[in-house]
Amino acid sequence: MTDSGVDVTLLSVGADLPYFTGYEAMASERLTVLVVTPASGPVMFIPQLEAPRVTANHVEVRAWDELEDPVDLAASLANSPGRIAVGDHMWSLFLTRFQKRWTGADWVPASTLTSPMRLLKDAEEIDLLRRAAHAVDRVMAMIPDGLRFSGRSEAQVARNLAELTVAEGHDEAAFTIVASGPNGASPHHHPGDRVMGEGDLVVCDFGGRLGGYYSDSTRTFVVGMPSRHQLEVHAAVAAANEAGRSAVAPGVPCQEIDRAARAVIDQAGFGEFFIHRTGHGIGLEVHEHPYMVEGNDQILQRSMTFSVEPGIYMPDELGVRIEDIVVCTDEGPDSLNRASRELTTVA
Amino acid sequence: MTDSGVDVTLLSVGADLPYFTGYEAMASERLTVLVVTPASGPVMFIPQLEAPRVTANHVEVRAWDELEDPVDLAASLANSPGRIAVGDHMWSLFLTRFQKRWTGADWVPASTLTSPMRLLKDAEEIDLLRRAAHAVDRVMAMIPDGLRFSGRSEAQVARNLAELTVAEGHDEAAFTIVASGPNGASPHHHPGDRVMGEGDLVVCDFGGRLGGYYSDSTRTFVVGMPSRHQLEVHAAVAAANEAGRSAVAPGVPCQEIDRAARAVIDQAGFGEFFIHRTGHGIGLEVHEHPYMVEGNDQILQRSMTFSVEPGIYMPDELGVRIEDIVVCTDEGPDSLNRASRELTTVA
Repeated sequence: MTDSGVDVTLLSVGADLPYFTGYEAMASERLTVLVVTPASGPVMFIPQLEAPRVTANHVEVRAWDELEDPVDLAASLANSPGRIAVGDHMWSLFLTRFQKRWTGADWVPASTLTSPMRLLKDAEEIDLLRRAAHAVDRVMAMIPDGLRFSGRSEAQVARNLAELTVAEGHDEAAFTIVASGPNGASPHHHPGDRVMGEGDLVVCDFGGRLGGYYSDSTRTFVVGMPSRHQLEVHAAVAAANEAGRSAVAPGVPCQEIDRAARAVIDQAGFGEFFIHRTGHGIGLEVHEHPYMVEGNDQILQRSMTFSVEPGIYMPDELGVRIEDIVVCTDEGPDSLNRASRELTTVA
Repeated sequence: MTDSGVDVTLLSVGADLPYFTGYEAMASERLTVLVVTPASGPVMFIPQLEAPRVTANHVEVRAWDELEDPVDLAASLANSPGRIAVGDHMWSLFLTRFQKRWTGADWVPASTLTSPMRLLKDAEEIDLLRRAAHAVDRVMAMIPDGLRFSGRSEAQVARNLAELTVAEGHDEAAFTIVASGPNGASPHHHPGDRVMGEGDLVVCDFGGRLGGYYSDSTRTFVVGMPSRHQLEVHAAVAAANEAGRSAVAPGVPCQEIDRAARAVIDQAGFGEFFIHRTGHGIGLEVHEHPYMVEGNDQILQRSMTFSVEPGIYMPDELGVRIEDIVVCTDEGPDSLNRASRELTTVA
């Protein structure tokens, strides 16, 4: 904070608060907020009715009751601060109220302070990410022999995948995309009633939370035998995934991972159909810094963790994505996901 | 907007956007934002990769690609507005960026505009709330004969309740509190490893989402036979719930619902243990306006929907809560929840 000229930091919902205190704020109209000033120690205000279950490290906890205003209480800890860092996900409802108390301040996202810390994972964090990745790999390996796609809806298969994600060791399933046939062209498709059948490509992108850390992996399957065109598209994505991962090394700018993956898809003639960045950091959030995207010249360092997930999306026809979580190590990329990247047939 | 002197409204994550457009923004570092100005029509900016699945009513949809800045695009629609309404849940990350573009503006929570509309439910909304409430009532009715508590953990029973919530017709389970014995004294307890046994009171507070609208009901059960003290505490809460519901009528200030319920618990000698407000509005959000809390002189109107949920929480000993969703009608209260409010024995 001192280096950044920040007088007050406010953290509420989001991953910064549990990163520093072990406590995750409930998203609610009742404000939970950690106030950090150089003068006072860190003080966390919580709603009184949460008090019996709140345990937080390194902070003083103060409960406010239903007739108090937590913004008033929190704002009383500092007098007209000049620069305030506010948690990226804090509700605007609360930020605008703090701004009425502390007028004229310069407000900056707390991630400018926290993300340089959070994006370097320690051994325990990498272990949790690895365990989560392996759990999702086990589910991927079960798919060809264990799950039926033909004659069933995307939503049904998505439910199966979410259940298996928990059964294999996650605390909870976090998201499940099953996008079949033409729906595959929608990268964030919501699994629906479409019944799958022979010849469909099916993008399966899912993950869960384990000890606070996320998995996130994608494989694309084919119902029955693939066409030559499907094999060609899939091969281009697999090669792009390989190229993106291979480019990972300390000292490389993030955008080079995107460029490496994109060059392969461009050369295969599918460039216009790769409509998103190549990857995102992962940890206490599914998406966090660093981002593998053109224009990001942030330098990769040892123990950064992020996805490499090129895709090709041909409108009204098909989609293919292959996604791995990679750790940047001194020896280069360490892919936490190891499930087969072949175009595998499902029934 | 004109009446409130608002020049621009910005809606992102949260329930306002689906209320007006039918589209719910994904909580993400990729901004989705609806910009409403009197000059231009409503324009919603979405990430390009979401475009294939976005359908929204009454708005023009514009996709931004990974190399564009959606805040720049959105801010270009209005020149130095004087007053801007911003969705209550918009991430501070985005609000602070809008504030760098539109300096010197007065920022107000969008709920000042939207909540007067949202808190009056139409027939279709009340029908969805009723169907959700009846589904959760059916689960409550199954508990005494259908679920075993003794010898099982809170977390296990919570999983059963979440599954039944879906099986009885919700699209998804939203939250599940199972708080047994001394854990009952924590109103927002997270179900854990505690194994239940003879003599435990167990607070079961759960709900789900059906067609976008929520259920939220609480009953308190006893494993085996209740003690005289447990019966006395439960009777006080049941009477407070009844008093709170009975006070509901058009023209009554919200705080009177709280006072009616609280007076009963005060008179029974448990006032210090009723540590939260009596209720909250419910609809597209589990908690929304209006709030049944001391100090809120907002006037109840026909077709407002909200919870009445008094409770008694005795530290290290027990908790009791009884919660119903009530519609304010011209004839007075219409409780959507009808499950037995007796202290019922479970095995």
